[in-house]
Amino acid sequence: MPTQFDPPSGTRDFLAAEYGRRERAFAALRSVFASYGFEPLQTPAFERVDVLLGKYGDEADKLVFKILRRGEHEASGEADLALRYDMTVPLARVAAAYGSQLPTPYKRYAMGPVWRADRPGRGRYREFTQCDIDILGSTSPLADAEVLCVHHDAMAALGLTDFVMRMNSRHVLAGLLEVFAVPADLGPGVLTSLDKLDRTASADVIGELVGRGMTSDAATDLVGAMTADDATDLIRKALQSSETGQAGLEEVDRLVALVGAQVPAGRVVFEPRMVRGLSYYTGPIWELTAAGVAGSLGGGGRYDHLIAQLGGPDVPATGSSLGVERVLMLQPDDSGQAARLDVAVTVLGEALAKHSFALAAQARSVGLRASVYLGGSGKLGKQLRWAADQGARWCLIYGAAEQDAGTVTVRDLAAAEQEAVAAAELASYLASKAAAADA
Amino acid sequence: MPTQFDPPSGTRDFLAAEYGRRERAFAALRSVFASYGFEPLQTPAFERVDVLLGKYGDEADKLVFKILRRGEHEASGEADLALRYDMTVPLARVAAAYGSQLPTPYKRYAMGPVWRADRPGRGRYREFTQCDIDILGSTSPLADAEVLCVHHDAMAALGLTDFVMRMNSRHVLAGLLEVFAVPADLGPGVLTSLDKLDRTASADVIGELVGRGMTSDAATDLVGAMTADDATDLIRKALQSSETGQAGLEEVDRLVALVGAQVPAGRVVFEPRMVRGLSYYTGPIWELTAAGVAGSLGGGGRYDHLIAQLGGPDVPATGSSLGVERVLMLQPDDSGQAARLDVAVTVLGEALAKHSFALAAQARSVGLRASVYLGGSGKLGKQLRWAADQGARWCLIYGAAEQDAGTVTVRDLAAAEQEAVAAAELASYLASKAAAADA
Repeated sequence: MPTQFDPPSGTRDFLAAEYGRRERAFAALRSVFASYGFEPLQTPAFERVDVLLGKYGDEADKLVFKILRRGEHEASGEADLALRYDMTVPLARVAAAYGSQLPTPYKRYAMGPVWRADRPGRGRYREFTQCDIDILGSTSPLADAEVLCVHHDAMAALGLTDFVMRMNSRHVLAGLLEVFAVPADLGPGVLTSLDKLDRTASADVIGELVGRGMTSDAATDLVGAMTADDATDLIRKALQSSETGQAGLEEVDRLVALVGAQVPAGRVVFEPRMVRGLSYYTGPIWELTAAGVAGSLGGGGRYDHLIAQLGGPDVPATGSSLGVERVLMLQPDDSGQAARLDVAVTVLGEALAKHSFALAAQARSVGLRASVYLGGSGKLGKQLRWAADQGARWCLIYGAAEQDAGTVTVRDLAAAEQEAVAAAELASYLASKAAAADA
Repeated sequence: MPTQFDPPSGTRDFLAAEYGRRERAFAALRSVFASYGFEPLQTPAFERVDVLLGKYGDEADKLVFKILRRGEHEASGEADLALRYDMTVPLARVAAAYGSQLPTPYKRYAMGPVWRADRPGRGRYREFTQCDIDILGSTSPLADAEVLCVHHDAMAALGLTDFVMRMNSRHVLAGLLEVFAVPADLGPGVLTSLDKLDRTASADVIGELVGRGMTSDAATDLVGAMTADDATDLIRKALQSSETGQAGLEEVDRLVALVGAQVPAGRVVFEPRMVRGLSYYTGPIWELTAAGVAGSLGGGGRYDHLIAQLGGPDVPATGSSLGVERVLMLQPDDSGQAARLDVAVTVLGEALAKHSFALAAQARSVGLRASVYLGGSGKLGKQLRWAADQGARWCLIYGAAEQDAGTVTVRDLAAAEQEAVAAAELASYLASKAAAADA
């Protein structure tokens, strides 16, 4: 039951443990991207509405969060800005704005929130982290292969092991439409229907194809070939009569060979019925799936004219979108509260406070996380409980007795032992204890 | 002259060099925060309008970016969500939502974008990074001192050295109003006028005070005391007759002593005419200023009832807002393009591409950033220029001759030397070269 204090529908607050878990994952991804020479790009949270709207059709536009004009224009009810819907529209704008300042090819990653006014639900958010890697300015098949290898290594860096990269090519699909005599104008609709074969009965897909205008025989043949046990062989054979289809097969085979040489066996497969819905792809396409997980964990392909269609220059492009939110959800929740402090320092009376404060600073000076007790109790027992709650390894006790002796009592909370340490030697004492604990 | 491809007014695109510079700064800050046991909190980019609006007055509300309702409600022109204006309102909501799940005291930092529809100008942005540290749930003066020390260490971590932390207390200011017989209802206005003494002539401030209802004599006395060379002494003396003023002085002195023991001499000063505009402060207040920089580089204070006023629980609180954008602007621009790759790999003919691809993977396997040439030229000279453009230290050349010999030519671009390395030994060769280059 949501309360007035919950974050807005479809969004999340990340407290320390979850924030830390996510940031560790993002750091691992950034490290993979950098290892291939991809560089970061960060664009504003919002774009002008004319930059953002009308790029992916009416359905997508409905999911855009629009920002009201301000001041005297607010009453108009009009929007002039809109929250980022994806990372590709901003990339197109950046390619247009900075053209020659960008390296060629421009290999960039973008990782940050995007906002979509989707119906929130289990695992579906209105604010979620999108992570895209793209290469602009290269027609080389090596660019596609590199994107795929980055995508693979990124998923592996997140601890994902049981996944498959399904590959296909728009040219294979075009060849299939040609071979099965699908009229050109029915092509996109037929592909949309075929895309459902993974989750819809063959008979229903055949019905849909007939509804779209295919003959019953042609639809039955096409679906039969796509769903046969030896579908890949059947389709390879069928495509022998199509030049486009042959080119598509060569495209896929080359990519499978390049990527397959870098990744564990069995992770790259040709999947001729994998369509990927978006019509802007122009060459190889791919999708990651994992055993027991419905839908994909990301994917992409070559999209040679999309950047121009989005308002940027007409550069060849290839890229992958990594389903990081989904992968994060698959990971075991290891986010038990980590220790906040290494060293907790008691404050036993106002007159001693400044000494306690200085002791914490000494601990920090040797790289330890340290803080004094900020509560109101003067009782040692309560302060020791606080130290344990912080996950601290050591508690420094400094009272009148210690002040008189010129020492600090260092209590090892893990070992439940304590010893008196000369105040002047505290920093080096803690440093050596910490080094021993790390070893 | 802005173009259609520029980011929206008041926002910025961060390409690789600037992104890297900012991320390094943010990482240094996070490290300081963690060293004191502060933990991160990340809230959504937007909040419900009822959570966000009406909290800081009409002027602030005008600066809020509001988000239009969606679907059938869009035509209403109404907003239901609004972009985060600061980090304090979300903190109040989080304190209310997660109460007992949060540690006591709750020491958190928040670092991320906030959005304000301010008039953009030199160094003023509509999307900028706000960085706040706060402690909820402690009335201890040590909490104020800890916030100040974190603030200090954070600025130092960003390389700032020539700055001063000016301290005061709302109780000192209240005592002053009492001693100079300012009627209670004029108090807030008088403080607002006094706050201008740094940048406005005394006569003008006196005029303003008289305009607010003070007698000319009282106004002249007050401004005279505040601007005298020995203002601090004069004010200390004047406050002897005010209990509130005395308490304020003690508050400041204790804080100056605690913080002053941790930071270099001269960085903490009592500044009785420092007001800080916001009326919600309830105890000590502070502000960072740097020589030659107009305005402040951040500041804060104790605000014991604000969290309740913002809709959260009534917890004592103290905190600082760090002017990280301003500090980043002060830093020298060292953001020359860093190297994108350590190892650049040539591709000399399609048949050899898969070998080049594997060579890059070998380099990555020993922790080097590596990528193959993705351009269209088969010419070695052009590919070597590309390698240099990437800032690569080594270029791997693999042609027909190398293939026959079972070697790779490793060219050291810095030393302009090259040698033939057995292909099977490439990874260990590069690892030892890299270790030598790092040493």
